[in-house]
Amino acid sequence: MQQLANGVWRLQSGQPEAHTPVSLRETEMKTEALEKLACEGRPPFTLEEVAVKRTARGVNIELPLGAEEQIYGFGLQLHRVNHTGRKKVIRVNSDPIADTGDGHAPVPFYVSTAGYGVFVDTSRYATFYCGTNLPKGASEHKQFETKSVATSEIELYGYQTASGERSVVIDVPFAEGIHVYFFEGPDLISAVQRYNLFSGGGCLPPLWGLGMWYRAYSAARNEDVQRLAEGFRNDRMPVDVFGFEPGWQTKAYSCSFVWDESRFPEHESMLDSLYGMNYKVNLWEHLFVHPTSPMYQALKPHSGNYEVWEGLVPDLAVKEAKEVFADHHLREFVDKGISGFKLDECDSSDFVHSNWSFPDIAEFPSGMDGEQMHNQLGTLYQAAVQAPFEVAGKRTLSQVRSSGALASPFPFVLYSDLYNHKVFIRGIVNSGFSGLLWTPEVRQAESPEDLIRRIQTVVFSPLALLNCWRIPNPPWMQVDREKNVRGEFLDNYEEVRDVCRELFELRMSLIPYVYSSFAKYSFEGLPPFRALVMDYPDDPNTYGIDDAYMMGESLLVAPMVTGETKRSVYLPKGRWWDFWTNKPYEGGQTYECTPGLRHIPVFVKDQTLLPLAKPLPYVSDDCTFELTVRAYGSAPSDCLLYEDDGSSFHYREGEYNWVKLSWHPDHQGAIAHSGNYDGCKYKVVSWEAIR
Amino acid sequence: MQQLANGVWRLQSGQPEAHTPVSLRETEMKTEALEKLACEGRPPFTLEEVAVKRTARGVNIELPLGAEEQIYGFGLQLHRVNHTGRKKVIRVNSDPIADTGDGHAPVPFYVSTAGYGVFVDTSRYATFYCGTNLPKGASEHKQFETKSVATSEIELYGYQTASGERSVVIDVPFAEGIHVYFFEGPDLISAVQRYNLFSGGGCLPPLWGLGMWYRAYSAARNEDVQRLAEGFRNDRMPVDVFGFEPGWQTKAYSCSFVWDESRFPEHESMLDSLYGMNYKVNLWEHLFVHPTSPMYQALKPHSGNYEVWEGLVPDLAVKEAKEVFADHHLREFVDKGISGFKLDECDSSDFVHSNWSFPDIAEFPSGMDGEQMHNQLGTLYQAAVQAPFEVAGKRTLSQVRSSGALASPFPFVLYSDLYNHKVFIRGIVNSGFSGLLWTPEVRQAESPEDLIRRIQTVVFSPLALLNCWRIPNPPWMQVDREKNVRGEFLDNYEEVRDVCRELFELRMSLIPYVYSSFAKYSFEGLPPFRALVMDYPDDPNTYGIDDAYMMGESLLVAPMVTGETKRSVYLPKGRWWDFWTNKPYEGGQTYECTPGLRHIPVFVKDQTLLPLAKPLPYVSDDCTFELTVRAYGSAPSDCLLYEDDGSSFHYREGEYNWVKLSWHPDHQGAIAHSGNYDGCKYKVVSWEAIR
Repeated sequence: MQQLANGVWRLQSGQPEAHTPVSLRETEMKTEALEKLACEGRPPFTLEEVAVKRTARGVNIELPLGAEEQIYGFGLQLHRVNHTGRKKVIRVNSDPIADTGDGHAPVPFYVSTAGYGVFVDTSRYATFYCGTNLPKGASEHKQFETKSVATSEIELYGYQTASGERSVVIDVPFAEGIHVYFFEGPDLISAVQRYNLFSGGGCLPPLWGLGMWYRAYSAARNEDVQRLAEGFRNDRMPVDVFGFEPGWQTKAYSCSFVWDESRFPEHESMLDSLYGMNYKVNLWEHLFVHPTSPMYQALKPHSGNYEVWEGLVPDLAVKEAKEVFADHHLREFVDKGISGFKLDECDSSDFVHSNWSFPDIAEFPSGMDGEQMHNQLGTLYQAAVQAPFEVAGKRTLSQVRSSGALASPFPFVLYSDLYNHKVFIRGIVNSGFSGLLWTPEVRQAESPEDLIRRIQTVVFSPLALLNCWRIPNPPWMQVDREKNVRGEFLDNYEEVRDVCRELFELRMSLIPYVYSSFAKYSFEGLPPFRALVMDYPDDPNTYGIDDAYMMGESLLVAPMVTGETKRSVYLPKGRWWDFWTNKPYEGGQTYECTPGLRHIPVFVKDQTLLPLAKPLPYVSDDCTFELTVRAYGSAPSDCLLYEDDGSSFHYREGEYNWVKLSWHPDHQGAIAHSGNYDGCKYKVVSWEAIR
Repeated sequence: MQQLANGVWRLQSGQPEAHTPVSLRETEMKTEALEKLACEGRPPFTLEEVAVKRTARGVNIELPLGAEEQIYGFGLQLHRVNHTGRKKVIRVNSDPIADTGDGHAPVPFYVSTAGYGVFVDTSRYATFYCGTNLPKGASEHKQFETKSVATSEIELYGYQTASGERSVVIDVPFAEGIHVYFFEGPDLISAVQRYNLFSGGGCLPPLWGLGMWYRAYSAARNEDVQRLAEGFRNDRMPVDVFGFEPGWQTKAYSCSFVWDESRFPEHESMLDSLYGMNYKVNLWEHLFVHPTSPMYQALKPHSGNYEVWEGLVPDLAVKEAKEVFADHHLREFVDKGISGFKLDECDSSDFVHSNWSFPDIAEFPSGMDGEQMHNQLGTLYQAAVQAPFEVAGKRTLSQVRSSGALASPFPFVLYSDLYNHKVFIRGIVNSGFSGLLWTPEVRQAESPEDLIRRIQTVVFSPLALLNCWRIPNPPWMQVDREKNVRGEFLDNYEEVRDVCRELFELRMSLIPYVYSSFAKYSFEGLPPFRALVMDYPDDPNTYGIDDAYMMGESLLVAPMVTGETKRSVYLPKGRWWDFWTNKPYEGGQTYECTPGLRHIPVFVKDQTLLPLAKPLPYVSDDCTFELTVRAYGSAPSDCLLYEDDGSSFHYREGEYNWVKLSWHPDHQGAIAHSGNYDGCKYKVVSWEAIR
């Protein structure tokens, strides 16, 4: 068992494969930050407790699982939070319709309430059996109760989970050897932090990335874009990012990566106009390269042996392919002001009527096969598209539909074509276990109520996105798609728009708080959005919560879905304050909340200093946030706000500040900047005591 | 390319695995019957056309796929009939909720409209890519149309199928070598027949197995069974088989395989009473052996290394385990008059909230791993439970929830916990491609209409089963479960019961026709239930039909589901006669049918002699079928009815007759028995000319 850094251990067995998440990554672990996280300096398992076996089918790993332990992680699992007793297959897929492990971003990493993490370094479709079965004979001498006869499936299958001498069994196909990484705690959240720091730390988005995003109609033309962009400003709807869907390219499915001049004549002047209105621009694409693309010939020798949708599949693990791809993006887009991309369909489809992507047996020039490439495609693609931003010295926040292991340094946010609102909320809860970010994007709505409920969830998420690719007019004008296309608007659209504006503005006031949470993600590996069990691992009431989460350290968010007029919210021990009414609640119990349509349950942890900004219409480079600081409780702790230029990589050279807000009961509060950034983003305009 | 029999070819590459469907089977191919099927005597592919490659991940096979070819098969696929352009994984699973290939009985066998079949002899989760992808560069020089911009998922994904130089690519994991079997046509149906004869021919059920089946309430006790059994006789509801659900055992989940004397005191006298009323008795079980089972100690050394539901998983590929299992079934059940079993949960679960079964990495004493055992469990289990019936000299017809390759000789019918009626109908259409039988069992109904629609489908299926394990009273008394449990009956239950009785009696009159179709399955490999494309491979209109099928050679059945008042039915070229009204229809076109609630569209092929029996209340050993023979068209062909004792294996020694019905316009018809069976099951009482 080799110690790689403070609290990070590695076990090798046999000859690991050449292509794995660790061998393919380009970032380095944050050794210094790991040093600062206290731990016992002892791996969570002894060598004797870890059984690794080479079999005809690959490598088989078995680890103990205590009777009370609860298992979390495995990436963006959309169907379940607590994986104890379940089987999970780490296989990338675009339509994870069931709780199989498949998903946009499955990760061979899990953490336990016992306070440790396990990462299996493989790009294979590994299967994790988390205490599903007992060994033969384990039940032989049990006392059995007289059975009652089941007359429903729930009775038959419901209670049938294994208890007793459990283990986690991991099946890594085809490998002849393996590296297993162990992360010490002492608690669950520290194990996650260590995994993120081992991955290279969390990403730090540009400030503008935390504003509102709007993706426009796929069939939009120049004039439609102009109309929408001006409309948001005229209607005082804060929007920072304007997204183009496939229609911007001459060919999409597969992609040409070339502006379609028939829809967007003089697209550069259109972009200038958008930039002039302070929009950032994001372009949709996927990886498959159409024969009409200028990159085609250069990429052909470095591509896999099968086409997808008539396009090449470039092997981005090959330096030349990555360079061709990154250079085109730098020259044609990033250097021309484009701020980010939406990387679609880098997953793979099996569960819907139209399956697609390359076969698992595909061969790539790097030596990877299709299976490995599927599980790595998301992160390889992110690395290739991030590269031009590194060259240009500009941060991006972008979107991606697939990710995987060691992904926390990538400034990309996951999304999905699935659309059940509860599933989307669960995505926020789960993504934080595995170094991922997720947006429960608003795409369509069955009613204004549904629209509002979904917007409420995105404004309390990593990326506040409205993806309106199917409708030419904003959804607050009309939620019904057919009517929206015909330009028939809701009678009360102004009222709906006002509610939406209020929520957009709420998002704008949360930016300093969220940005600082991201800074802790970057420097300390602390997930900005996370399950309650991460902060309260000793409270079994949090173990199964999949519909509420922490946003930063101080806000507990419990979204609601359309049709609900009330919901129950469990508050962990301690006092909590209603974000809207300032009413105090004693934790350790469950409350029935009826916040009305304009609000969802949000609670502030006791003794919090919460900075809320006066909403800006957009985030410009030189903006300043005017803060009202709410002081909850009798003696609020200091609050550290993170400050830098908000858009470059200078922070990596130390050009940032920690701005300390402190509360003094007598003279209210104080603000103190310290660090090497010489700008000033924050100004406190008022303090509010809430008791 | 080695010729194994007339029209059956085998290709070997490398060293095939020790455990495969062929190596594990106990039946032999029907060489003589294969001789009788004409063919060219040339394998469908030359050696040069078949690429087999050994890679680090197993064996990779590539076969040509013509531009017009349509691919069918892969076992009991519930979500699609035509697999061209799709990916299918041969992985057994109990909840195949999507079109992935997973299912109760996936089979690594496909047939093509070009008139050949391909069987890959593996128990692995092999993946078949049926023309999903083109090789790199294939699209480079295509002419591309100017795109229109998609604004919906259907537009984006709908048309994206590969055309051009396609192939079928097969990924067999872990294997170091493989046997691939090729079956000549000349047409699709002959290729299927050859596969079935290679498997050992189709099964021949006992005559009683073709009557009505009723599975009783899981929590039923002695007195409840008696009440139901007497009720059917009093109400003149023809029922042949009475099924017990888990409640009969002292322990179930896992199983003790011992009668529960608290629910069924003196169960032997209860059985005698059922036998006295001419019921056959079927017992539910699964394979997992509870510690309290008398078989436990004997099976323990021959079981896999993990428990399922506290029970052993016996390795039925080991002779000793099979013997212990078969001996217990012979001594305790078959010798005591039990006629069959329902083998539940021999699949495995991944797609629902309660996954279960052993891991793929489980180890079995035979040397098989969990993956291989999963795909073989269904057939190994069928072989073990069939064994005592062979010893006793009695045929069974039983149920099983999982099956696989080479299964046609097993007298077992598949069923599922899925319950969408259209999916169930598709199961009938698909099962015939791969040597499987399937019952679209009636389990619950949302209304009397739903009940009737579902019963109509089962009476035109291999097994006419009502599985009433969740309700204590017959469903025609009350479809609502809660009310049924409380004994609150429908106001018009007599009316509903009368419609049901009419359908039950229809099933009884079809027995001679269905039994003879099964005899052709047994002797010639001809599936008794099959897709229209099998009989009409040159008619592209049949290629996608997944909601109508042939029952035997002469009946085209098009079931309806609740809520439908009409449905369209495509009739292939030729004349067809409405089964109910005797109205003629010209084929080669689609008709809108409105048969009313009491009927579904059923059409009789022109020039058919269709024997319909006077409905018996049950099938006893000495029963005789009094036939009315309907003569459709101007010059009906002869009809061959199969005749034997209906229950023993003497037919294997030639004790059977083919009874020829011939039509003579002048003096109506003639019946002629020929063969070595000295009984007489059929008597023609009338002839009806239909023109």
